[in-house]
Amino acid sequence: MHKVAVVGASGYTGAELLRILHRHPGVKITCVTSRQYVGEPISKVFPSLRERVDLVCEENDTELIADKADLVFTALPHKTAMEVVPGLLAAGAKVVDLSADYRLRDVGVYEQWYQEHSSASLLDTAVYGLSELYRGQVATARLVANPGCYPTSVILAMAPMIRAGLVDLSTLIVDSKSGASGAGRSAKVGTLYCEVNEGFKAYGVGSHRHTPEIEQELSALAGTPVQLNFTPHLLPVNRGILSTCYFNLASAKNTSQLVEYFEASYAGEPFVRVLPEGELPNVSSVSGSNICDIGVVSDERTGRAIVVSAIDNLVKGAAGQAVQNMNLMIGADEATGLLDVPPFP
Amino acid sequence: MHKVAVVGASGYTGAELLRILHRHPGVKITCVTSRQYVGEPISKVFPSLRERVDLVCEENDTELIADKADLVFTALPHKTAMEVVPGLLAAGAKVVDLSADYRLRDVGVYEQWYQEHSSASLLDTAVYGLSELYRGQVATARLVANPGCYPTSVILAMAPMIRAGLVDLSTLIVDSKSGASGAGRSAKVGTLYCEVNEGFKAYGVGSHRHTPEIEQELSALAGTPVQLNFTPHLLPVNRGILSTCYFNLASAKNTSQLVEYFEASYAGEPFVRVLPEGELPNVSSVSGSNICDIGVVSDERTGRAIVVSAIDNLVKGAAGQAVQNMNLMIGADEATGLLDVPPFP
Amino acid sequence: MHKVAVVGASGYTGAELLRILHRHPGVKITCVTSRQYVGEPISKVFPSLRERVDLVCEENDTELIADKADLVFTALPHKTAMEVVPGLLAAGAKVVDLSADYRLRDVGVYEQWYQEHSSASLLDTAVYGLSELYRGQVATARLVANPGCYPTSVILAMAPMIRAGLVDLSTLIVDSKSGASGAGRSAKVGTLYCEVNEGFKAYGVGSHRHTPEIEQELSALAGTPVQLNFTPHLLPVNRGILSTCYFNLASAKNTSQLVEYFEASYAGEPFVRVLPEGELPNVSSVSGSNICDIGVVSDERTGRAIVVSAIDNLVKGAAGQAVQNMNLMIGADEATGLLDVPPFP
Amino acid sequence: MHKVAVVGASGYTGAELLRILHRHPGVKITCVTSRQYVGEPISKVFPSLRERVDLVCEENDTELIADKADLVFTALPHKTAMEVVPGLLAAGAKVVDLSADYRLRDVGVYEQWYQEHSSASLLDTAVYGLSELYRGQVATARLVANPGCYPTSVILAMAPMIRAGLVDLSTLIVDSKSGASGAGRSAKVGTLYCEVNEGFKAYGVGSHRHTPEIEQELSALAGTPVQLNFTPHLLPVNRGILSTCYFNLASAKNTSQLVEYFEASYAGEPFVRVLPEGELPNVSSVSGSNICDIGVVSDERTGRAIVVSAIDNLVKGAAGQAVQNMNLMIGADEATGLLDVPPFP
Repeated sequence: MHKVAVVGASGYTGAELLRILHRHPGVKITCVTSRQYVGEPISKVFPSLRERVDLVCEENDTELIADKADLVFTALPHKTAMEVVPGLLAAGAKVVDLSADYRLRDVGVYEQWYQEHSSASLLDTAVYGLSELYRGQVATARLVANPGCYPTSVILAMAPMIRAGLVDLSTLIVDSKSGASGAGRSAKVGTLYCEVNEGFKAYGVGSHRHTPEIEQELSALAGTPVQLNFTPHLLPVNRGILSTCYFNLASAKNTSQLVEYFEASYAGEPFVRVLPEGELPNVSSVSGSNICDIGVVSDERTGRAIVVSAIDNLVKGAAGQAVQNMNLMIGADEATGLLDVPPFP
Repeated sequence: MHKVAVVGASGYTGAELLRILHRHPGVKITCVTSRQYVGEPISKVFPSLRERVDLVCEENDTELIADKADLVFTALPHKTAMEVVPGLLAAGAKVVDLSADYRLRDVGVYEQWYQEHSSASLLDTAVYGLSELYRGQVATARLVANPGCYPTSVILAMAPMIRAGLVDLSTLIVDSKSGASGAGRSAKVGTLYCEVNEGFKAYGVGSHRHTPEIEQELSALAGTPVQLNFTPHLLPVNRGILSTCYFNLASAKNTSQLVEYFEASYAGEPFVRVLPEGELPNVSSVSGSNICDIGVVSDERTGRAIVVSAIDNLVKGAAGQAVQNMNLMIGADEATGLLDVPPFP
Repeated sequence: MHKVAVVGASGYTGAELLRILHRHPGVKITCVTSRQYVGEPISKVFPSLRERVDLVCEENDTELIADKADLVFTALPHKTAMEVVPGLLAAGAKVVDLSADYRLRDVGVYEQWYQEHSSASLLDTAVYGLSELYRGQVATARLVANPGCYPTSVILAMAPMIRAGLVDLSTLIVDSKSGASGAGRSAKVGTLYCEVNEGFKAYGVGSHRHTPEIEQELSALAGTPVQLNFTPHLLPVNRGILSTCYFNLASAKNTSQLVEYFEASYAGEPFVRVLPEGELPNVSSVSGSNICDIGVVSDERTGRAIVVSAIDNLVKGAAGQAVQNMNLMIGADEATGLLDVPPFP
Repeated sequence: MHKVAVVGASGYTGAELLRILHRHPGVKITCVTSRQYVGEPISKVFPSLRERVDLVCEENDTELIADKADLVFTALPHKTAMEVVPGLLAAGAKVVDLSADYRLRDVGVYEQWYQEHSSASLLDTAVYGLSELYRGQVATARLVANPGCYPTSVILAMAPMIRAGLVDLSTLIVDSKSGASGAGRSAKVGTLYCEVNEGFKAYGVGSHRHTPEIEQELSALAGTPVQLNFTPHLLPVNRGILSTCYFNLASAKNTSQLVEYFEASYAGEPFVRVLPEGELPNVSSVSGSNICDIGVVSDERTGRAIVVSAIDNLVKGAAGQAVQNMNLMIGADEATGLLDVPPFP
């Protein structure tokens, strides 16, 4: 039985980690932390956890945490994460960090889009935890940088096309839509119920911080620098990201052929479902699960392909993928505890 | 490994049964039926099931079903259910029937609120499957009548108070609110998105068919006939029932005392959580789980108590409770496969 | 052209006042105030107002406001309102106050449910602005206490029954449900999108501050003190209150007879629609309008009546009713600017 | 007072026409038709209309309709519309047709995307009713083809850019999202509450019938054939369309410069609001109104511009624009009855 801790348990990602870890047969949650709720049961913060996960929130004391747990999930905002992660590693724990702090390999790019980096020496150690791409490295990593929610949806959608050389790389446009849990649980007017409900808007156009993360991974796949337009939108649902990706086909293919590339790429993957020709994803078919659904259409009229992917931003986009990485790191089957059917409706 | 079938798999309750049974360690789903989708994979009807439950829908042929499965869940509309259940029993299967057809012990009451009963001889055989009240009988039953969603929420809320003699039985008023999945998956204008979203209404006032079911069980608990007002409302959420129950206290008690009665009644119950004084249930803290949350307030100003209960209508109000009953019937731990943390948000 | 001001324009009620006043043919909005946004255009706070209402937010300076406007709407929290209203009256303005500060005639009751009252001498001057009950007094008032949202829905539902002597007054129970805009626009975790969406809960059970307001008005109608149970719930919609009222009939009446009482009581009322037997209100049929829909059922089985009313909490429950009162105060037709069809869906 | 009729009043667009026409000072609604509800009051179909619009539904008898009304709104499905429109014109009425039947000038294109056209001789007579582009022709038209909802949002977003020669026409990609009222009011499983709520999906990728309509108008503006990718998505809100348009800039411009082009193009337009640099539209700021909000960003990193527009699909995308056209046709001020502030929240 592996002992695990969740640092930053009072956010939505923290709660989702606890939900998923609670039902995992190979681990025991031994420690939860939350600066805001020290001394209070986490089930008071999230009544859904009552009588299921009844730990009391502790301080973010890295030695204490590493003493109680072999593997630690840090579910903290960027910048705060890198104040905690080095101490956890030094104290001997393995870490899956769900912040942005260790995702970008180039510290210069990080500092351009975020702020100064205080822990750059660890960037070489960190493995980008998109298991479908890096599972070998994840298995031996001490620090996994869990991918961002939007990047997960986009990279899984684009990887097979880029690997196959089918993408005119100068034409890539990604239009993404995320549910409101992606905005976190801090009290802000902009995420009040009445501000989000019956609304829909784009935000961060041309400037969202997930852009360099997507570009880093697509560039690695292409073997050449890739730039794209990435436009996120705020969707009035609790959970779910749908990304609609457009690009000019480098060589003519019909929809059926494109589906075949995806099927070949993702054969045997437990969490990527390639939809047959004529079907397209809906976030409601994956929400609550670690699944990524992908559909594709070749528009022969314009010579473009449209790839659509759907994930749950809190699961495959955060907590579920983190547990998938943990499974690799502890030598368990990668899918352990993550194979549930998504609840619908 | 017990073999189970789901008859009527293309409704929301059918899908939820498949979701829950898929992750149950002690059963194998061997047959799903749907008259409307014979020959089609159930994962085409519900894309959430793709690569998880990939059975093909079959006809409602009772011999065939009983041949494939030891225990059958019938998730059919009332009246249709009793055309199928007798054949399944005759063919040797155990049945958990999720319709209303075997819930009312008095055929006269059934015929007054529903229509003619074609299978009345089985009413004595059937056990009312509210496990918290009847687990002994359920364990040996061949036919379990799975309770209605509203009745589950109301009976669990009222049983401890009635047993304790605290209820002035002539004063009971129940105001319930249910999510839209309770209305089923058939195409009707009244349950279109735009008709339900941003709306809220009462319906079936004074005439809802769950009234006699609630009265039957509360009368049994009270040892004397109970009549009440039951008013359901349609709530713009997918899942969840919240019932607010009002009654005059037969003897003065404060909130703290009332909470103690509930705690004593439900000590050790895996699925009933009694909230501490000052906290009240929210459907979002139980949706997706088999849990019933209960809170109570004594209004000393008016001499009344208000009990509030919350369940997921598709789980504790239908599929989850059905599997809880199945667990008892197959000799498994009652909570097997049902102890997950509710996803929030 | 009457000149009007809105004090506290940056809340949802303030925005709704501006929306309604903008299309009123007899008034000109000359001043808006918001402490938080002094110097900023109100259309920056609410982009819906852009190019329609482009005033700049000013300080809450009572002399300045009274200089610019003949009639002032104060849309402030209780306690803050009574710091501003006396000054506005002293400076010669008429005031429609949308807070709770002048609704309760008995200062002792106010101080029991709220806090100390610093402006009690004005309580005799204030007229309770439920136009359907007090339109004569409103017409000549200098200070109107605009009713609370829940009380409006309950008093309109119960007045005809109490006046007719049909209510066993010791049995009254009111179960109300309100949309999230009733909780205001300040940033709190409890009203974040993900906390409200797909959720439903009761709150303030036995302790909500609208209880004494409802009891005050029902007692006045009954000519004897009335106590009741009032239970509010938070509904996942932007707008709308539905109140379900239960009471024992003092003398047996069928539904058709009860409908007639309502029709007689509200004949000629521009904003109360009595639904025919067999129909019940839905908040989506009134949201966006100043209308109150009322339906009634006599449950002859239990001897109780159930009255259901629906309003838009921001319109008939706040800004619309305030303008209705203003119309009476300025000698305009009571319905001016308020007769629109509710948008549906 | 002009007499107007609404043919096909029992759909959402019909209801919205009645809502808007009811408050128009220059017209009287003299006739409503609905094949499904002949003989029933339209307020029974839509309780929101009760005591506001109390006409009884009549048959679609063109002579009778033209006898009662000078101007007729046909809110029928395509194909059904062209069975009715010729008769109405022959009987002397002016017609604003809200279907797709007269929008495409080229009958071949129509027959390729829809089905056979039975009324092609009227295509030369029909004026495409996007008032901002064609107000002169609309004013003298006998038959106006009211634009589709998606095309309205896209053409208004792109017209200033194309006219200015700023668009590399081969690179245009439009990603649109529409609320569920766009799917109409007929009973289908796919638009049930539980199927749409908490969901989000693309549909009609590469094949949506609004594509040729958009291309027709953008080609006319460009003076050369334009092809684009148009991808609609189903948004879990009642009302609203947001279109996100991407294209390579034909010459480098920064955001501020692009905003200026929009401001110059739409100066004086009563219903198009150009947002300042740094602000982007939200459907909740326009829903319930005839307004189109437009924001633009120049992404200098990629050389692309992103234009975002928001409308209410039932108002500017249907009924409101139809009344705007009517105003021009009857010689009234174009904005009469349409200048309300959008309700928020």
